Amino acid sequence: MGKKYICLDIGGTKILGAVLDEKDNIVFRVKKKTKANKGIEEIEKRIIGVIDELMKELGADKKEIEAIAAGAPGVINDETGEIIYAPNLPWENYNLKKVIENEFDIPFYIGNDANLGMLGEWKYGVAANRENVVGIFVGTGIGGGLILNNKLFTGKRYDAGELGHMVLNTEGPYCNCGQRGCFEAYASKVAITREIRAQIQRGRKTVLKDFLDEDSIIKSKALKYAIEAEDSVALEVMDNAIYYLAAGTGNLINIFNPDMVVLGGGVLESLGDYVMPLLKKYLKRFALPALLSGTEIAQSSLGDDAIIYGALAVIKDKKG
Amino acid sequence: MGKKYICLDIGGTKILGAVLDEKDNIVFRVKKKTKANKGIEEIEKRIIGVIDELMKELGADKKEIEAIAAGAPGVINDETGEIIYAPNLPWENYNLKKVIENEFDIPFYIGNDANLGMLGEWKYGVAANRENVVGIFVGTGIGGGLILNNKLFTGKRYDAGELGHMVLNTEGPYCNCGQRGCFEAYASKVAITREIRAQIQRGRKTVLKDFLDEDSIIKSKALKYAIEAEDSVALEVMDNAIYYLAAGTGNLINIFNPDMVVLGGGVLESLGDYVMPLLKKYLKRFALPALLSGTEIAQSSLGDDAIIYGALAVIKDKKG
Repeated sequence: MGKKYICLDIGGTKILGAVLDEKDNIVFRVKKKTKANKGIEEIEKRIIGVIDELMKELGADKKEIEAIAAGAPGVINDETGEIIYAPNLPWENYNLKKVIENEFDIPFYIGNDANLGMLGEWKYGVAANRENVVGIFVGTGIGGGLILNNKLFTGKRYDAGELGHMVLNTEGPYCNCGQRGCFEAYASKVAITREIRAQIQRGRKTVLKDFLDEDSIIKSKALKYAIEAEDSVALEVMDNAIYYLAAGTGNLINIFNPDMVVLGGGVLESLGDYVMPLLKKYLKRFALPALLSGTEIAQSSLGDDAIIYGALAVIKDKKG
Repeated sequence: MGKKYICLDIGGTKILGAVLDEKDNIVFRVKKKTKANKGIEEIEKRIIGVIDELMKELGADKKEIEAIAAGAPGVINDETGEIIYAPNLPWENYNLKKVIENEFDIPFYIGNDANLGMLGEWKYGVAANRENVVGIFVGTGIGGGLILNNKLFTGKRYDAGELGHMVLNTEGPYCNCGQRGCFEAYASKVAITREIRAQIQRGRKTVLKDFLDEDSIIKSKALKYAIEAEDSVALEVMDNAIYYLAAGTGNLINIFNPDMVVLGGGVLESLGDYVMPLLKKYLKRFALPALLSGTEIAQSSLGDDAIIYGALAVIKDKKG
């Protein structure tokens, strides 16, 4: 049957797992809630549960699993497998590698999710064979990944590419990080949700009201529904978010002069057809023309599977 | 007598030339005005004149000149020596390499001045042996240089590191590039001069008035004099510029997670003792604490000679 690989995308709300075969095809998938608020042991149990289910699907073929790899949010030492810090999970100086290897006796690798998303698009997706690529992933927050000189760039302390905390307006809205006017405070789903709530509080009518509970973050699919219904609040709020998405993207083009910028994450996955043309329009305002004209602006081609494929790339790379 | 190297720093207002010996010491210097407004041929004559004077100083030893190298502003193909575009000089798709090699029959190399300044500090200055370094050079504009994974990063089209055109406020003051709120539109001498003029127009008294002609850019030494005299306009304007210098520097720390940020250029050369403590204070507002704590914030140690030493590094590198 040939070699098999288990790849995971561990997020703050859900864990995606997949088995991939030697030809890089996804053969099974499993999805579970993370239940991050229930503590470290419950999350471990759920990650192990995802792997167990994938192995059960494989049956006798589970002997052929070469390695397991995962992307997770946070600052991760990809050599030791230690998660130094994770913003949405109760992990600090936590070694998930030891936990998984003790449980399954199969090599386990882990990396930052945005970095793995970038790696996935670069090895298997739209950014293949590009020397310098900036990846911008728009979801609850904004994550970034950098391919520089044909290599994933992580900086010395595994934390380069905090693109979401680039300041676009020194006096702008406060960000969760304590700074003001961060990229993420303008163009992420957290920011979009804040703006929708502000309009609802002003008494404006919007179909989005029904999609928001007290503490929830708006779902990309709800945004898509509202945009298609030409809801004026949704159109205004998204227009503003895309304007700042262009400001941040333009800065990164001016700094890196990349071959390509890849845009991905949940918002692009649901709303790419709406976001991309507006983004390109506003980019003319924020990127130097000589640099913009040489930069491809592309949407992620792997979508929700980008991190899964990045994990596969890590396994293939470690296997040499 | 051993090998000699001629290194040049070709700026919009002046050309600095130096002869360096095998032990990397500067043995002679020559300085001439560029007279950029007099056209390409006059500039060529002046560059050749600087080299001629350096050779005359060397006398019989001029046979020992191994190579000539120069830093110049603009987008430069450092393989062919072609200057694709230069903002303050009348050069477009212009090959200075051919001109100099025809004249002297000695190998000539050229690179972007900010990149060479970064290279100089990395090979011979304060940034020696650091793997990832961001260089920010504050003069008339703001130039940038990047050392990533122990290598100068220039992007594919020789134009990475346009750090000066990173937007810090989407609705900020217009920049020469046509964007609004660029780093350079807040923290360069052009921006500082604009703010001083605005205060003079408001009728405020300042010692800086005597240092400004109708079209001139304020000199760093005049700023130093005014700061030492505790001139209130100078103090306010510099405080504002340093606040934005911190905003730009903080963004770059968040993006690159570098080992070190090096600050250089004329403003730092004259006012480093004043700028650096304020910069470090404001940086706490703009860089993520975990990243800031691991980043050295250093002033250029080569000062006005950084580009000269970067040119030397280019020659040594080409000679293998």
